[in-house]
Amino acid sequence: MRMNKTDCIFCKIVAKEIPANIVYEDEDFMAFLSINPLSPGHVLVIPKNHHRWVWDVADIGGYFEIVRKIALAQRKAFDTEMILSKVYGEEIQHAHVWIYPNEKIPGNRNDFASNANKIIAALGK
Amino acid sequence: MRMNKTDCIFCKIVAKEIPANIVYEDEDFMAFLSINPLSPGHVLVIPKNHHRWVWDVADIGGYFEIVRKIALAQRKAFDTEMILSKVYGEEIQHAHVWIYPNEKIPGNRNDFASNANKIIAALGK
Repeated sequence: MRMNKTDCIFCKIVAKEIPANIVYEDEDFMAFLSINPLSPGHVLVIPKNHHRWVWDVADIGGYFEIVRKIALAQRKAFDTEMILSKVYGEEIQHAHVWIYPNEKIPGNRNDFASNANKIIAALGK
Repeated sequence: MRMNKTDCIFCKIVAKEIPANIVYEDEDFMAFLSINPLSPGHVLVIPKNHHRWVWDVADIGGYFEIVRKIALAQRKAFDTEMILSKVYGEEIQHAHVWIYPNEKIPGNRNDFASNANKIIAALGK
């Protein structure tokens, strides 16, 4: 049984009620592009169940296995070693980890479909 | 056999050749206070072996179990829900995760001994 909140935008993305550029999904976690990207291919990784904070997710190890999987795909997709991450959490009250290439890489951060496809292709390699 | 670099300041902290306000240590990871804290109790969690980037650490799940352990202790120590984290990595070329209370909490971020002791006490609870 999925734990979700009817007024939470990320819960609505999990339920596919709101569209997003999803690059990864499994039973417990989902990863999609930020709509306010700091760099091309800026991804948010979230638990599908609603938790307020990243540190409330019991399977934190499994969570960051997925974050690392995205980071390694971003390295291939954007040909850079340096992948950054932030955990803040004030704006949207559903746990999320930002994972994004450094801001020096070339490319258009607002070219969402192309950036998502690069990450999806790299995940498949 | 410990993998380390003779010219790396974090490897020297692991080897206890340079002092630090250590709050946690096990076989594979170490946590100590930042000397340039953004808030009281700002901690760096590092793998003891030298890796360039956080995403190069194979046991990423175990790594973030320790980061979460510190975050939960910081919540108790500084009486706040909101614990932030950043992974950058340009300044020191040894993988490190920043984990720190939000900047609104009271206290002196440069009172290192007292802030370390609060975290150590909370880890023991």
